[in-house]
Amino acid sequence: MRNRKILEEFKLIRMITAQLGIPSRRVLTGIGDDTAVLKFGAGKLLATIDMQVEGIHFDLNYCLPAEIGHKALAVNLSDIAAMGGSPRYALVSLALPERIDETFIKSLYRGMKLLSRRFDVDIVGGNLTRTPGPLVIDIACLGETKKPRLRKGARPGDFLAVTGNLGNSAAGLAALREFGRSAVRRFPTCARAHLLPTPRVKEGLRFKSATSMIDISDGLSSEAHHLAEHSGVGLIIDERLLPIGKECREIARRMKCDPLVWALHGGEDYELLFTGRGALPSGAKVIGGVIPRNDGVQLQRMSGESVALSPKGWNHFS
Amino acid sequence: MRNRKILEEFKLIRMITAQLGIPSRRVLTGIGDDTAVLKFGAGKLLATIDMQVEGIHFDLNYCLPAEIGHKALAVNLSDIAAMGGSPRYALVSLALPERIDETFIKSLYRGMKLLSRRFDVDIVGGNLTRTPGPLVIDIACLGETKKPRLRKGARPGDFLAVTGNLGNSAAGLAALREFGRSAVRRFPTCARAHLLPTPRVKEGLRFKSATSMIDISDGLSSEAHHLAEHSGVGLIIDERLLPIGKECREIARRMKCDPLVWALHGGEDYELLFTGRGALPSGAKVIGGVIPRNDGVQLQRMSGESVALSPKGWNHFS
Repeated sequence: MRNRKILEEFKLIRMITAQLGIPSRRVLTGIGDDTAVLKFGAGKLLATIDMQVEGIHFDLNYCLPAEIGHKALAVNLSDIAAMGGSPRYALVSLALPERIDETFIKSLYRGMKLLSRRFDVDIVGGNLTRTPGPLVIDIACLGETKKPRLRKGARPGDFLAVTGNLGNSAAGLAALREFGRSAVRRFPTCARAHLLPTPRVKEGLRFKSATSMIDISDGLSSEAHHLAEHSGVGLIIDERLLPIGKECREIARRMKCDPLVWALHGGEDYELLFTGRGALPSGAKVIGGVIPRNDGVQLQRMSGESVALSPKGWNHFS
Repeated sequence: MRNRKILEEFKLIRMITAQLGIPSRRVLTGIGDDTAVLKFGAGKLLATIDMQVEGIHFDLNYCLPAEIGHKALAVNLSDIAAMGGSPRYALVSLALPERIDETFIKSLYRGMKLLSRRFDVDIVGGNLTRTPGPLVIDIACLGETKKPRLRKGARPGDFLAVTGNLGNSAAGLAALREFGRSAVRRFPTCARAHLLPTPRVKEGLRFKSATSMIDISDGLSSEAHHLAEHSGVGLIIDERLLPIGKECREIARRMKCDPLVWALHGGEDYELLFTGRGALPSGAKVIGGVIPRNDGVQLQRMSGESVALSPKGWNHFS
């Protein structure tokens, strides 16, 4: 089911991209990377947009309004981070059901404001409308970079590395669904990874020698396939090297889940996946390497055996 | 009711603006004008976002998908036009209910693409998500200008002028509601004004000596108040000078409505309202003048009598 839905989304994106045709020469990187890269004056403008729908991306049963505001902005900042960019400006559109009151909206904006201040981002405009449907938050984010780090550029022999731990967001979501808000106290790291993700802006800026970069919002397996496809390479991921935290393992044990599945396919870990050579920047861990295209995307199991890794990332069509 | 809802929206915007606090010095014009004006390199970047919700902004009973796509982009281009800017880039977010199929999405994008080509705009990215609610289209648009034309700047003694005819969109909407799609054939000018508005980008660029400018998406009376407030002036509008077309009058006669109400309060006429001195640019008509602040916003009736004009524009909170 999940795979079918992912295919459906990619099919739609392909159809739309084909329909829009070739963009003008002002567009340095168009649809298909974490953000667009656009000529503006002498500079390079990064632009991205991301929509969060109640009941699809968040659930008011265990998400606070300030957390929803934080995350709606964080996912955009993560896209700018994945280009090695500095976020600058955000525009916020809200579709508000009647039941959403002023206090809720104030909290939502408090969450956005606190995060925007941390990353020196100005919220410069927006749009409010009523809706007969669920709450919708759509944020467009603009950033700047001298040298964008794209999905393409990885070469066989490069290391494959990731920031932070994997699977925390999926584990946090599972815990929140199982235990409600008490999960925030019981499993603070994972609940926080799901509710209040930190976009890796600083890390994205730091990894100047990265040959390719992507954020793993849709899950490691799915994003690894994107990176491999864009770069025209294969990837090998070593199961033993996957950084999975203690709390994530603890939640998995209690809920009789496999933490490896969360780490590989869980999604919403707003970490950066990147390739490069030489010294690894601090705060990142090697999880594998770049191999020739024909070898595909592989997972080397604990046993030493290598298997093809299929893209099963979380997506909003599932 | 309408007034209450407008007040509610403005109250929310004021609350949000106050909460966000003072933006950084990169923000030349923040929340409150047609678009934000942002420093980017040596240039001035215009940024705006506008959300269209099924059942609030459009009705699938009489709007075709390509028209919805066209209009969702047009309302954004109109905001850029109102700043005297050139639109450059657009980002498109879609929340798609299950019932919306590929053919629909293709048509929606065809409408956007045709308009984007006319105005040399690149659609550079977007976001697709499922929704359990109505179809939502949110578009962010980026533009460029050397000298933005703001809502502030009007001075007593300036003329007040408008592009195009007024009330056509409201008349077209009334006709579409009454006669369904046959209205498109019977009243092509007004139906088109409602379904396929032309953003006044060329006109906005042409009126270089305008002292202030705004688009009248929310209706003349409402937008006149915005312009007066931002400029710290009063305005007088002469009822006899309001450009109301033959077809609009014809629809009003048939439906026993007052075309003046549509012209003043109807909204969704994506025309430009502006002030200035000297020669009037072609394609515009004087409808009144700028007066001192204390005189407020007035309507001079056919009888010669002047009355206070209250802001009753259409808004998406009604």
